[in-house]
Amino acid sequence: MVRVRAVSWESEHLRVLDQTRLPFQESYLDLSFVDDYARAITRMQIRGAPLIGIVAAYGMAQAALNCADATSERFEREVRRAAERLAASRPTAMNLFWALERMRKVMDGNSLRPPPEIAQLMLAEARAIHREQEEADSRIGKLGATLIPEGSELVTICNTGELATGGQGTAFSILRQAHLQRKLTRVWVPETRPRLQGRLTAWELSREEIPFCVIADAMIGWLFRQHPIAAGIVGADRVAANGDVANKIGTYQLAVLCARHESSFIVAAPESSFDPDCPTGDEIIVEQRSADEIRELAGNVVLPEEYPVWNPAFDITPAELVSCYVSEKGIKPGGRVPEEAKEK
Amino acid sequence: MVRVRAVSWESEHLRVLDQTRLPFQESYLDLSFVDDYARAITRMQIRGAPLIGIVAAYGMAQAALNCADATSERFEREVRRAAERLAASRPTAMNLFWALERMRKVMDGNSLRPPPEIAQLMLAEARAIHREQEEADSRIGKLGATLIPEGSELVTICNTGELATGGQGTAFSILRQAHLQRKLTRVWVPETRPRLQGRLTAWELSREEIPFCVIADAMIGWLFRQHPIAAGIVGADRVAANGDVANKIGTYQLAVLCARHESSFIVAAPESSFDPDCPTGDEIIVEQRSADEIRELAGNVVLPEEYPVWNPAFDITPAELVSCYVSEKGIKPGGRVPEEAKEK
Repeated sequence: MVRVRAVSWESEHLRVLDQTRLPFQESYLDLSFVDDYARAITRMQIRGAPLIGIVAAYGMAQAALNCADATSERFEREVRRAAERLAASRPTAMNLFWALERMRKVMDGNSLRPPPEIAQLMLAEARAIHREQEEADSRIGKLGATLIPEGSELVTICNTGELATGGQGTAFSILRQAHLQRKLTRVWVPETRPRLQGRLTAWELSREEIPFCVIADAMIGWLFRQHPIAAGIVGADRVAANGDVANKIGTYQLAVLCARHESSFIVAAPESSFDPDCPTGDEIIVEQRSADEIRELAGNVVLPEEYPVWNPAFDITPAELVSCYVSEKGIKPGGRVPEEAKEK
Repeated sequence: MVRVRAVSWESEHLRVLDQTRLPFQESYLDLSFVDDYARAITRMQIRGAPLIGIVAAYGMAQAALNCADATSERFEREVRRAAERLAASRPTAMNLFWALERMRKVMDGNSLRPPPEIAQLMLAEARAIHREQEEADSRIGKLGATLIPEGSELVTICNTGELATGGQGTAFSILRQAHLQRKLTRVWVPETRPRLQGRLTAWELSREEIPFCVIADAMIGWLFRQHPIAAGIVGADRVAANGDVANKIGTYQLAVLCARHESSFIVAAPESSFDPDCPTGDEIIVEQRSADEIRELAGNVVLPEEYPVWNPAFDITPAELVSCYVSEKGIKPGGRVPEEAKEK
């Protein structure tokens, strides 16, 4: 199997896999200007909180490289403008702001150097962010797999693989490790309307030869009644200081079903998704996306334009529904009281 | 507003609205042979448990009329064959078997009469089934509306309007009555993948000028956290003797969310959907439909054929999650213990 890279730096620009074309077409986009980066994020040709952070970091490096021959003043102004443009591309993704902040620090901490040198340092920082994510993913997979019992059927949501992180994935990395340790019977993959990121997860599972089955989002409840599901495993776009989790719309109801059926609910995310400055989920602004995502299915219009539609991209799962959090730093308990404890 | 009829008997055949073309096209199918009827049911051009029953009844009448000039023996054989063909068209719908049984009784109870006379009696019986449904629907609406507090936001699932029953609908009839009594603030309409019956509900609500909003199925949980939802109101394909409810896939998780958020969960269905011979939901065989319904969105293929897919059309909601049942005969309490009672 030839490894497909979600993102790769090609000496002077970034090459990304266009995720809107999967699973049928593996086609790449070459991003050479900040607008290309922002557009790829807004159109969700690349997506997934950690990957958005990585692409935004490369985007700032690109902006710096593209105006490295300008005066220091213009250089700084251009790069700051790029950061603003990129920050506006997806409002909920914690890693986006975190990555932009890291890049900004490199620029500010080296402002006395000539622009070409700052640009090179910024490219090095973007590469470091990418590499650190790969290391975090691998660690998350190994740690998380210790939580999975043998012979498990698991359910996930959205996509959390390389396509979401640029490394081995977050929740996906745990699935992969559990599979390598022969603990997995099957992964259940909700299609994840409106954007159908489930097809990306199915594509990644199929490439890794991990047994899976795709379902519609409305089937998760019945799945729990028909199959012994050991755990729901999800990623996170942001985790508040109190443990509330912002993640793909549908995560909250999956967590409710896990609690009802006494299955674990595991949140896997790199430390960069944990936001100590955000006290609770109530402070997280949930991105509302275009009504067309509901009105259209794979490009076919199924609802007239005058029909009202609601399209929040994320929801907030309260910490009390989380069994545990897995990051590259370790496993932390969530707020859910285990059934044994309740009975006491 | 010109009333659009879901089904109407046109002197020698049945005319039905092709529901797969809505909300954009109001096009009709003329059913003149039993195969036309069975095909319209299998392809879900007509759907909804009560409407399937009505169409199947007309289908048997059609079979009888079409061979009314045959010998009594051939007549009986042909009509029985038609009943078998129709019974095989949708396995979960209680009303289908109930309607076929009623039609069979008319044939058997009049077997000494000449076939043309039996055929006319069968047509009269099909019309009676249709008319009784209309009366039941109207009664369900009036009874059910008494359960709805003023200023309510409600959530439903699938489609339960005229398109599902041939009358005013079951759950939909309650929405309509509550709206006429100015109790409704808004109806939330999950799109109901894979077949998107939500678009039918949206179309019917929009024709009645009832405020509504369409959401993806994964948004129901978050909806409960963002809006005060008074109740979930659903139809039923079959209700077992113990109160377990077979209904569109996704109903179970809606019921779980209603219970968690202390909103009522109301099941509206005509008496013909209640099956005294079926002790519990465990005895109900849930129809599995084609994998293509998941692989395709509005005709566009989004998953390769080799990807495994699960596609149950229904799920079973245990009686303990139901607040009450509304039929034309009255309101019966479900198995859910009200919150006040729990606290005592």
